[in-house]
Amino acid sequence: MIKINNKRIKKAQELMRKEGMIGLMIMNHDDFIYFFNDLRVQPRAIIPASGPPVLIGFSAEEEELKGQINDTEIRLFSHIGEQISNVREVFKTIFEGAPPGLSHQDRPKVGMQMWFHTPAFLVDLFRKVNKQVELVPSDSVMDELRMTKDDAEIEKIQTAQSIAAKGMDTAKDFLKPGITGHELATEITYTMMKAGSEGTSTPIHINSGKRSCWIHGTTTKDPIQEGDLVVIDLTPMFEGYCSNLARTFIMGNPNKMQKKLFEVYLEIHESTKKELKPGNTVSNLDKLGKEICLKHGFGDYHIKGISHGIGLRFEENPASTIIPAHGKTKFQNNMTVTVGHTILAVPVIGGVRFEDIYRITNDGGEVLYNYPFDYIL
Amino acid sequence: MIKINNKRIKKAQELMRKEGMIGLMIMNHDDFIYFFNDLRVQPRAIIPASGPPVLIGFSAEEEELKGQINDTEIRLFSHIGEQISNVREVFKTIFEGAPPGLSHQDRPKVGMQMWFHTPAFLVDLFRKVNKQVELVPSDSVMDELRMTKDDAEIEKIQTAQSIAAKGMDTAKDFLKPGITGHELATEITYTMMKAGSEGTSTPIHINSGKRSCWIHGTTTKDPIQEGDLVVIDLTPMFEGYCSNLARTFIMGNPNKMQKKLFEVYLEIHESTKKELKPGNTVSNLDKLGKEICLKHGFGDYHIKGISHGIGLRFEENPASTIIPAHGKTKFQNNMTVTVGHTILAVPVIGGVRFEDIYRITNDGGEVLYNYPFDYIL
Repeated sequence: MIKINNKRIKKAQELMRKEGMIGLMIMNHDDFIYFFNDLRVQPRAIIPASGPPVLIGFSAEEEELKGQINDTEIRLFSHIGEQISNVREVFKTIFEGAPPGLSHQDRPKVGMQMWFHTPAFLVDLFRKVNKQVELVPSDSVMDELRMTKDDAEIEKIQTAQSIAAKGMDTAKDFLKPGITGHELATEITYTMMKAGSEGTSTPIHINSGKRSCWIHGTTTKDPIQEGDLVVIDLTPMFEGYCSNLARTFIMGNPNKMQKKLFEVYLEIHESTKKELKPGNTVSNLDKLGKEICLKHGFGDYHIKGISHGIGLRFEENPASTIIPAHGKTKFQNNMTVTVGHTILAVPVIGGVRFEDIYRITNDGGEVLYNYPFDYIL
Repeated sequence: MIKINNKRIKKAQELMRKEGMIGLMIMNHDDFIYFFNDLRVQPRAIIPASGPPVLIGFSAEEEELKGQINDTEIRLFSHIGEQISNVREVFKTIFEGAPPGLSHQDRPKVGMQMWFHTPAFLVDLFRKVNKQVELVPSDSVMDELRMTKDDAEIEKIQTAQSIAAKGMDTAKDFLKPGITGHELATEITYTMMKAGSEGTSTPIHINSGKRSCWIHGTTTKDPIQEGDLVVIDLTPMFEGYCSNLARTFIMGNPNKMQKKLFEVYLEIHESTKKELKPGNTVSNLDKLGKEICLKHGFGDYHIKGISHGIGLRFEENPASTIIPAHGKTKFQNNMTVTVGHTILAVPVIGGVRFEDIYRITNDGGEVLYNYPFDYIL
């Protein structure tokens, strides 16, 4: 059900004016949920720097859309190709008078999310047909708005994380040598959907054996073997909000080096979570992790990016493994970040990751959902 | 398991030279499967216009990668940020001698997929750090290679479609007023994963009531009502290959207008599939659909794009609802396309879609998996 959040729109408009943007082009479900409180697939909306927002919908959706909103203008299209021309038309009315042929830096700026769910071809197409405006990433407005979470948002992330916990319980119930990652993912998915998961932000990661060293993850149809390390990373969503729970298990008893690897990771996790305080940064946390790795002889295997922001988007600012500059983003109270994003992977021994979500507080990270750290089943 | 397909690489290199590209930058799982026969998440590889391909992997993945390949160069990185600099380094060795400061049209061209899974920010970043090359869509090479399918590919799409059929059977078993779209999607997902689905290309669509008119789809936690039209669209994948099976059901008995809507859609589907012959185009098929709609008084509700290509990507050339020019792509034998992509949606009455996959033959479309068209449960 669409419910326009005028408070957030007003704040976005203030930031747009500050950043010199004439409008925001909304193309992603997360931005749409943030402003309009409804999950829609490939939504299209424009929020001008002043005045009411414009929704662009397919003609046959008019009845359903108009039943939900009053004073917002709805532009309709009857062929997907027309979305782009509708968008151009709306922007023309917004920047009426802007002369054509301006150089990049003098054109009116339009902000758009350019993250993982914004296809490259669509941005190229937008630029081609909207030559009077300069398309820029909307991050300077949206990050500022969305980095800190209100209570209702934290509750939703918590619910999503509790669903991930149910999935991890199922993983522990079924995990044994011989089962395939795919079979495990099937049962985990069923549990999480029954508990309310709308889907996952990333594929379920079940990386076992040599693949426990992978930096990304997936599931395969190969059976898990005795002695394997198994990295499981779950990311179910609830009402659009993301979760992220990762644990690593050993199939049998760890050898000495594996035990050490687990202990070092848990030491990094424990030390890091205490430093989740306003003013601190992911760069600082990474320095701490590096020191711990060096102390235990794993310095060569340390990689940066132990934490990332999480909310309506799976990776939000700070997302330093994607945008290195985010390593310098200063934490604020009520930001929600993970600890345990990076794998500690040592060839031949295996890879380990334990990831949870924390709220930034003056006293350090407050875990959103407490899940055990046991790794021997 | 990585298995380099040298035949496809050689053909790609011929096409690259014809198109004036010095290399292909592989960033997407579908291109990676096509050339290297392995599903990897966010893979990175470069295929130069001549010489062996280069794989770029995370340092801790070296053991696993080197165990699978012999003579291919592997570049390794130990921080995600380094991927981009590794890429730049490889391209430098490929285009050694190309002077800096060339204008766009004179720079050596590098092809890259720019479809839904290629994030806009990554393309902008690539362009920023690889200024000596001109990044262009790889479509002119990849579409040419991938549009027609070999027998092994058709078999995989068939398997994927048979998994979708099992999901649709489950939908029919559970579908009744009172069940929510989410509950239905939970059972469908469980069935499809048990049957081997690796995930779906799109979210499962269960659009009921007013939402049956939606052009895209999702599931909600609202219960399905007596009298609703319910559009169900399933897209499970098998070994990276996509499927697409859509059916529409009525909860109870259709009224006169709903019955007509079903009959018109089935007439469009039946007439269209007969015309899936070499040389024909989606534009022509759309003309046929428009005539049928006009004949029955639904002319205002006809939308273009009844078919789209399908394979390792959910929507491949022809994908005219995204790239209008694809409406003119000429069919060839052994292309695989859907019929039933567009919704026929009439406000107040509802929306209908029946979608299957066909192989183009001289005798018209050969259905890859035969699934009944019944719509009353």
